[in-house]
Amino acid sequence: MTADIKPTFHWEEGRLIFLDQTLLPQREVEIRCRELPQLAEAIKSLRIRGAPALGIAAAFGVALHVWHDRGPTSADLLRSAEEAADILRKTRPTAVNLFWALDRMLSVARPSVHLPIAAFKQRLLDEAQAILKEDLETGRAIGANGLKLIPQKASIITHCNAGGLATGGYGTALAVVFAAAETGRDIHVFVDETRPLLQGARLTAYELKRAGIDHTLIADSMAASLLAQGKVNLAIVGADRIASNGDVANKIGTYSLAIACDYHSVPFYVAAPTSTVDLSLPEGSRIPIEHRAPEEVRGWMGNPAVPEGTPCWNPAFDVTPAKLISAIITEEGVLYPPYDLPEALKSHAQGVKQDV
Amino acid sequence: MTADIKPTFHWEEGRLIFLDQTLLPQREVEIRCRELPQLAEAIKSLRIRGAPALGIAAAFGVALHVWHDRGPTSADLLRSAEEAADILRKTRPTAVNLFWALDRMLSVARPSVHLPIAAFKQRLLDEAQAILKEDLETGRAIGANGLKLIPQKASIITHCNAGGLATGGYGTALAVVFAAAETGRDIHVFVDETRPLLQGARLTAYELKRAGIDHTLIADSMAASLLAQGKVNLAIVGADRIASNGDVANKIGTYSLAIACDYHSVPFYVAAPTSTVDLSLPEGSRIPIEHRAPEEVRGWMGNPAVPEGTPCWNPAFDVTPAKLISAIITEEGVLYPPYDLPEALKSHAQGVKQDV
Repeated sequence: MTADIKPTFHWEEGRLIFLDQTLLPQREVEIRCRELPQLAEAIKSLRIRGAPALGIAAAFGVALHVWHDRGPTSADLLRSAEEAADILRKTRPTAVNLFWALDRMLSVARPSVHLPIAAFKQRLLDEAQAILKEDLETGRAIGANGLKLIPQKASIITHCNAGGLATGGYGTALAVVFAAAETGRDIHVFVDETRPLLQGARLTAYELKRAGIDHTLIADSMAASLLAQGKVNLAIVGADRIASNGDVANKIGTYSLAIACDYHSVPFYVAAPTSTVDLSLPEGSRIPIEHRAPEEVRGWMGNPAVPEGTPCWNPAFDVTPAKLISAIITEEGVLYPPYDLPEALKSHAQGVKQDV
Repeated sequence: MTADIKPTFHWEEGRLIFLDQTLLPQREVEIRCRELPQLAEAIKSLRIRGAPALGIAAAFGVALHVWHDRGPTSADLLRSAEEAADILRKTRPTAVNLFWALDRMLSVARPSVHLPIAAFKQRLLDEAQAILKEDLETGRAIGANGLKLIPQKASIITHCNAGGLATGGYGTALAVVFAAAETGRDIHVFVDETRPLLQGARLTAYELKRAGIDHTLIADSMAASLLAQGKVNLAIVGADRIASNGDVANKIGTYSLAIACDYHSVPFYVAAPTSTVDLSLPEGSRIPIEHRAPEEVRGWMGNPAVPEGTPCWNPAFDVTPAKLISAIITEEGVLYPPYDLPEALKSHAQGVKQDV
């Protein structure tokens, strides 16, 4: 399946092209996005989702907005880039990769203001393309680094979708699964359906089927029974934001799975690029958690089960404390507790890889 | 709301009448059942469900089948009762109340074989009515006994539906909630939606709304986050079968909630009639667990999220070990660990109530 990686994003003649993930797996419909408001809506509505993918989308969003700006000077275009960043910053609050990518785009835009406008536009597009390309390489590296944690025959549980669709095209948690399958390991994946929006049922099952990897879909609340019956060797999930102490925000339900893994002494791994680490936050309780519309809990893909007006609680993410996480798999290496991410990332920056 | 109890079952001119719970809360459609096969189908399809309700339905099923039998002697009717029991025994395997009620009906039928046929029929109908009436009294007693565990202001989480619809009309877990509300306590209930068949979203939310009790619907995997945020004082669930050592089989997802409660030191209570105790089983691993069709996990009320053929695992129940259960609330009193149910039930039979 190595040859099969299709980047999640594609730039073509001033448009950003990606699949509408809310329609998967029933329909593969491309969104061909020319306007920033359309992209912002696609992010808010989860047509594109997943922390690394949000970073890439945000980067292209800045490039897109600047690309079509008719301002006569690069100073106008810089204002346009900043305006795009302001709009995108308000789309979704939890995944830090989005903010990371916007900061990176602006840090490229600002010193480029002396360039002619065509070169300024190209510079930003090149940076977005670089973020996409780096993400694909990062996914590969996460997969390779995670391999040492995967037995020759392994039953793995995952939550939500941390696959190609959540990234540039290869994944984080699923990158490890893909790498394990590519290296001939005998892999079975249990897929949490991931209520309320079913990213597991709709996207992870779809990716695993496409990759020819054995899998079984379960309702989220069944995971504990699987673990009790010894049917799972390990869990791997992605991350939307990781605090300095190793606390991890990820899709709602991750914490429940982590507690159940802890109770059954099953290793619980997080796979994420280092761009998901937010060193400005000492611990997970400081991570802003998005709350979404009650309709998502009241129903299923638009089909309600309960009357309109039924009160619901709908946090999109939860925080798993570092003490429940057996290791964090990054593109730089595998980190083990006790986590000191500022120190670990400094070492990486100095070329010292952990546990490599 | 005390005056509002409507029995879940109603006998009228040779028919057993009950709501089709698969259509709730959108539509209140009565099933008027005259034939045993229709009742057996209603049980298999969860049109009627909940351990105590299954016991009552099974009892009426025997009475119904005998009622319409045209056999000339009571010996013929006894064979008909046994035939009905054989058919009903095969409908659903986990809730022990069903088997308990069938045994009770046959233990009444056998010594009644000397009666004239009209009297034999009436004797079985009277016994089914008695089981229904006793269940309503049992629900009241469970509610009253559980009150001591409920603070004056309490936030309670529950899983699945253990309310009036799961019983003769008052409930088990929800009996405690109803009793707490009736005695003026300030109650808020968090309702696990209970995938895959949504008994929480569809039935528990419906009953709480009807009773005017504040509630909030959540996806099952959100419970752990609620607990982490200190938003829940205690959990109460029902039971489908309780082994001698206090292990409890209940709706899939119960075990996951119990582990999360344990992790957060939140009391986890089970409320059930003593007819749910199966003294023939030393421990929960011996409880037969029903596995249901994969379509239930693939979709939501008939709306699929994944392609037909996606492999699924779909146990209808899980087993929560006694060590995770803070107390078992029965009509006889509240039992605390370590559980020795044969001893406790013997004491009850001798008129010695635990903790009363």
